[in-house]
Amino acid sequence: MKKDTQNDYALIALDWGTSSLRCYRFNAQGEVVERRGHPWGIMNLPAVEVGDDPQAPFRAALHSACGDWMQAAPEAPLIAAGMVGSKQGWREAPYLTIPLAPDRIGRKLTQVDTGAGRPLYIVPGLLQVSTLPNVMRGEETQVVGALRQYRDDELLIGLPGTHSKWVRVTHGRIQHFDTFMTGEVYGALSAHTILGRTMQKPDAPDDAAFMRGARVAQTVEGQAGVLSNIFSSRTLGLTGELDAAAQPDYLSGLLIGHELAALKSMTTVHRQRIVLIGDAGLCRRYRLALELYSMGPVNVAEEATEAGLWLLAQHAGLVN
Amino acid sequence: MKKDTQNDYALIALDWGTSSLRCYRFNAQGEVVERRGHPWGIMNLPAVEVGDDPQAPFRAALHSACGDWMQAAPEAPLIAAGMVGSKQGWREAPYLTIPLAPDRIGRKLTQVDTGAGRPLYIVPGLLQVSTLPNVMRGEETQVVGALRQYRDDELLIGLPGTHSKWVRVTHGRIQHFDTFMTGEVYGALSAHTILGRTMQKPDAPDDAAFMRGARVAQTVEGQAGVLSNIFSSRTLGLTGELDAAAQPDYLSGLLIGHELAALKSMTTVHRQRIVLIGDAGLCRRYRLALELYSMGPVNVAEEATEAGLWLLAQHAGLVN
Repeated sequence: MKKDTQNDYALIALDWGTSSLRCYRFNAQGEVVERRGHPWGIMNLPAVEVGDDPQAPFRAALHSACGDWMQAAPEAPLIAAGMVGSKQGWREAPYLTIPLAPDRIGRKLTQVDTGAGRPLYIVPGLLQVSTLPNVMRGEETQVVGALRQYRDDELLIGLPGTHSKWVRVTHGRIQHFDTFMTGEVYGALSAHTILGRTMQKPDAPDDAAFMRGARVAQTVEGQAGVLSNIFSSRTLGLTGELDAAAQPDYLSGLLIGHELAALKSMTTVHRQRIVLIGDAGLCRRYRLALELYSMGPVNVAEEATEAGLWLLAQHAGLVN
Repeated sequence: MKKDTQNDYALIALDWGTSSLRCYRFNAQGEVVERRGHPWGIMNLPAVEVGDDPQAPFRAALHSACGDWMQAAPEAPLIAAGMVGSKQGWREAPYLTIPLAPDRIGRKLTQVDTGAGRPLYIVPGLLQVSTLPNVMRGEETQVVGALRQYRDDELLIGLPGTHSKWVRVTHGRIQHFDTFMTGEVYGALSAHTILGRTMQKPDAPDDAAFMRGARVAQTVEGQAGVLSNIFSSRTLGLTGELDAAAQPDYLSGLLIGHELAALKSMTTVHRQRIVLIGDAGLCRRYRLALELYSMGPVNVAEEATEAGLWLLAQHAGLVN
């Protein structure tokens, strides 16, 4: 095994969310040399023995996760994106308002003292000031990463998940975004309403059930809206038309179909390129549903978080 | 106090749901002489000491609730509506399919042996066979009760609640109905998603916040749909535009607004009469939102359950 040199410690970067802390070590060429995952999201920090310094648990998490990297490379800059910059995080990194050019984000980092002789630079989230405002924190970094690879004049970047984000990029500027609480609503309906009571977890993903659900929003029944359509997960079960094990994927498809139908109704550009970022299984599902709604062409961006952290550090002047 | 006679025990009627058991004693004129409420819904039956007869807890609940009435009037017929007739109830009372004339419901009651020398007659629920089927159980009785009072050629009966039902009645026939899981979705979002975390319970109902939410579905922002719009309960809080104590009513209005916008888009009859049945506070809220959506005129039906139980017993030939 080749011994690491200072060249292999050009940047220590963190994707620090609500439920997990992911760490990346980059070499001077901007390649990830090592990656680590910890469960120390900002809502799940390690216990600290003494004192009531609210920063102590963050410091403890950072040192546990990458203390050896920091020691090996006392000069390596530290950057973090995600909920660590929220009000509930280590230090609030104020939102930047859109529209904006993505290379401006890296110039507005917020510093926090790590207690180890160098600051941690925290990436700001984005705010869309509108009648119903929208915010993101963490996804901006993935968008920056994806934009390295895709440079279409009109681009729609989709980040499916607990809260799906759909970001419209026009001539390289982040122009607009929408949030859909699809993933979290799915979880709450499955675990905490009558719909969950007749469901059984399937052995394998049931694409047929998913697509049956996804289709509803584009039919005449879809007109009744999502608050009404979801009840069919139960009633199709009652009438023997939908197995218990098909109900979870049916409901998931139903919600995602309504998300895409709404998104399509708001999209003025015909057949623009869509870039998906996120969990592979979920991206596969969204791709199926996007095809059903005649949206796309669809690409899936790889390692957008890593690419985004490196680019933001570049824009900040932390790395060359 | 006038002593009750057999005339005051013409019918013992039960509204027996998932979480409660309500009992009504009628005189021969069809007036309620006495009413009682118990927490013994079918999911919360009293514990029975011995035996594994699945009917025993139902018998125990019935005798605890109205044993004295049954003893005072050995001839009085017993009728029950609600989830007691579901698969999880005392005995399944098979669904009747719509369209149908409401006086046919009382002719299809299901008997169960009370163990006290007379049967309990259970009212069937209604099933709408359609691409996405719909069911109701208990609400059919309230609809029958309301139809005693309102006889318009075209009528829309609304039963807001955990699952809101909207029933279209044409020339006295139950023609169509829709279900919206509005109440249950509201509960799940408030208790089990990030939206609840920034909410505070208000001291009094905040009609301004409710109406602000209710309006969203009819604005251009409403196009993003309910899965997206609900996120604004949080973001308007983050930007200081919506107090924590205003968020519950705002979210409630937002969901009800989407329910009514969908309902209106499916309604072909202009300005038909709407009759609301249910909790007074909730009916007041729906009336405000219906006015906002230029729907109605709106009436609120009183004691629809009691009237419906009496009428169904009449149609069944149990009372004169």
